[in-house]
Amino acid sequence: MKILVQKFGGTSVADLECQKQVCAKVLAALGRGYKMVVVLSARAGETNRLLALADEWSKTPDLAERDSLVSIGEQLSVALFAILLKDAGVKARSVLAFQIPLITGDEYSDARIRSINSDWLRAELEKYDVLVVAGFQGVTEEGRITTLGRGGSDTSAVSLAAALQAEECEIYTDVDGVYTTDPRVCSQARKMRTIAYDEMLEMASMGAKVLHIRSVEFAKKYKVPVRVRSTFTEDPGTLVTQEDSSMEAVLVSGIAYDKDQARVTMRGVPDKPGIAAAIFGPLSEGGVLVDMIVQNTGRDGITDMTFTVSRKDLAKTLELMQKVNAVIQAQEVMHDVHVAKVSAIGVGMRNHSGVAARAFAALQKERINIMMISTSEIKISILIEEKYVELAVRILHEAFGLDWDMGE
Amino acid sequence: MKILVQKFGGTSVADLECQKQVCAKVLAALGRGYKMVVVLSARAGETNRLLALADEWSKTPDLAERDSLVSIGEQLSVALFAILLKDAGVKARSVLAFQIPLITGDEYSDARIRSINSDWLRAELEKYDVLVVAGFQGVTEEGRITTLGRGGSDTSAVSLAAALQAEECEIYTDVDGVYTTDPRVCSQARKMRTIAYDEMLEMASMGAKVLHIRSVEFAKKYKVPVRVRSTFTEDPGTLVTQEDSSMEAVLVSGIAYDKDQARVTMRGVPDKPGIAAAIFGPLSEGGVLVDMIVQNTGRDGITDMTFTVSRKDLAKTLELMQKVNAVIQAQEVMHDVHVAKVSAIGVGMRNHSGVAARAFAALQKERINIMMISTSEIKISILIEEKYVELAVRILHEAFGLDWDMGE
Repeated sequence: MKILVQKFGGTSVADLECQKQVCAKVLAALGRGYKMVVVLSARAGETNRLLALADEWSKTPDLAERDSLVSIGEQLSVALFAILLKDAGVKARSVLAFQIPLITGDEYSDARIRSINSDWLRAELEKYDVLVVAGFQGVTEEGRITTLGRGGSDTSAVSLAAALQAEECEIYTDVDGVYTTDPRVCSQARKMRTIAYDEMLEMASMGAKVLHIRSVEFAKKYKVPVRVRSTFTEDPGTLVTQEDSSMEAVLVSGIAYDKDQARVTMRGVPDKPGIAAAIFGPLSEGGVLVDMIVQNTGRDGITDMTFTVSRKDLAKTLELMQKVNAVIQAQEVMHDVHVAKVSAIGVGMRNHSGVAARAFAALQKERINIMMISTSEIKISILIEEKYVELAVRILHEAFGLDWDMGE
Repeated sequence: MKILVQKFGGTSVADLECQKQVCAKVLAALGRGYKMVVVLSARAGETNRLLALADEWSKTPDLAERDSLVSIGEQLSVALFAILLKDAGVKARSVLAFQIPLITGDEYSDARIRSINSDWLRAELEKYDVLVVAGFQGVTEEGRITTLGRGGSDTSAVSLAAALQAEECEIYTDVDGVYTTDPRVCSQARKMRTIAYDEMLEMASMGAKVLHIRSVEFAKKYKVPVRVRSTFTEDPGTLVTQEDSSMEAVLVSGIAYDKDQARVTMRGVPDKPGIAAAIFGPLSEGGVLVDMIVQNTGRDGITDMTFTVSRKDLAKTLELMQKVNAVIQAQEVMHDVHVAKVSAIGVGMRNHSGVAARAFAALQKERINIMMISTSEIKISILIEEKYVELAVRILHEAFGLDWDMGE
């Protein structure tokens, strides 16, 4: 059985006209001999409408009930689309999580998939040519409805593709693929034909929000080839897949940026063991995600500790730091919201030195001051003044040869 | 375990303010020591909105998919109400049909309940004080969602009460009980304290649309005491229950009327065996429900056959009768839509003669012409000109002593 999974987002199923275009995509794939699993999101705006209702009913709505509530958005989408397919003469049916079942833990609103009954799905694929599966939802062992968190329909699609060993998982969206950087910022941005899972993970977490990050982790774990493409064109899009030698030949695959950064500096803290724990322990307990961290080499037993957080968490962070400071006695707590992060990403940089140096040189040439640097195996991130972020993206894009077709 | 079932309709759960009133009713019953099963309908207008979507997507939407679609109206209601109860500190949860499960046949859009897992419900009632159950929905043995037809939430409530041997099943609605007749037509109409199942069946099918008829059949079969009352008052409403001697002491309990009647007469048909079958067979096959039927005694081998159908079925009926007439050769096919039916109902009339005579005399006194008469054990129905229907209701209401408090 040759199986293809296709996932369509909220704008693709928003109204009858959109759903007819989706229908055409599905019919085309059926014509190529596939059995199909079509995963749908809620219609655009529906999930927010339902969440707003829950918030109207309670300031702290019960999470299990809220999940049961918001899951109806996808139930609506799949029933309507199945009606459309049957009208077109296709042997199709809608499928809800409890019917498979697709079992998750009971972390309501952000549940993790535990198992998928692929035997049941295969049996249904014997009877039907298309299963229209509600994305975003699962059920606990006890049969209570859960949701997988924002963007969870991508995760549904990839995990169904993994369970069924589908040939490919196509994620249809309103962009036609993954670009070397944001085309709105850099006119030289190119669509990539392929990208490695690890690169995609860095891109996704950096604000290139094409794919839900957990779905990429899933795809990587189960080696599911994922294709990101547009509902509204015939372009083959970008294939997210295992890295190969051709990818490693490219030093940097893409440039990402993130403006949602605020910098906090604890100036003049005693340079002794336990200081880092004293600062970051309370932040972790308070649910604040820390991104970049830099500690300068100390002098005279005194050092500076600098880190960045999401802007929405800044007020909470400063409040926590006041308390921390009663203990650690820094000379000053400073902060700055006019900062942004630019990153160069590529599995190729693993085998090459000098990538960081090339990035710094390019930025320095334009007199862009580098505030912080952090590096990982396949990524270099640089914190700069926010006003330079677009310029920095274009400079790095050119510096790493992404402006020209490198025949990848 | 002392269990009470309460069912609230669409207007009672329409918005937050309404649901708060429902919440108060539930809290009051909890205070009286009950474990509660609260059955909810979809919010007012929701089911129609969903059905309209299905119709937009297809002229003949797949019924299984349409059921999955419209069932989300109740899923929305129960999740929101459970959120409200939990906010009020009540141990409560929402319950969907698949979770119980409440099993039905696969007659989509009009499914019949086959079984209810009462063990599961009782176990949940050990853990929770209130189960908020989605009305109107069921699942097939295979786990596909079904609906019970219009007004099916009443049936859900009564069948849950039967399965749990609840003390009572309270149906909250926007009227405060069952009246001896329509108060809009007759200012002398009185609210009944009790009514027998059989009387209620006749009242319900006659347009006194307080309770879904199938729910009354269910209640009668399983001897579930059903109380019809208002969400917006403290009035005890009307108890629908098994008949007892006090009920039989009352000759007529109520007067119902139905304007949705069209009369068809096959004039001058040969008075021979098989004629009735020739006429009513095709109507039955065509899905036309025939209400009253009268055949006059024949003369000279010729007779008239008169019957009534719902007005929406008149065109189809006349079409079918044209075909029938090619065989049976009536002299004329006549019809009249300006007719209405008035009925007197009461278990007491079983033991008394003269009820029909008293009705005819009362109508004759006001010179209301009687077109057709049909009688059953506990009902007399009379077809009259539509313009006299309100007058006839008031006349009969008075003639059978319903205008005064009879101390029932």
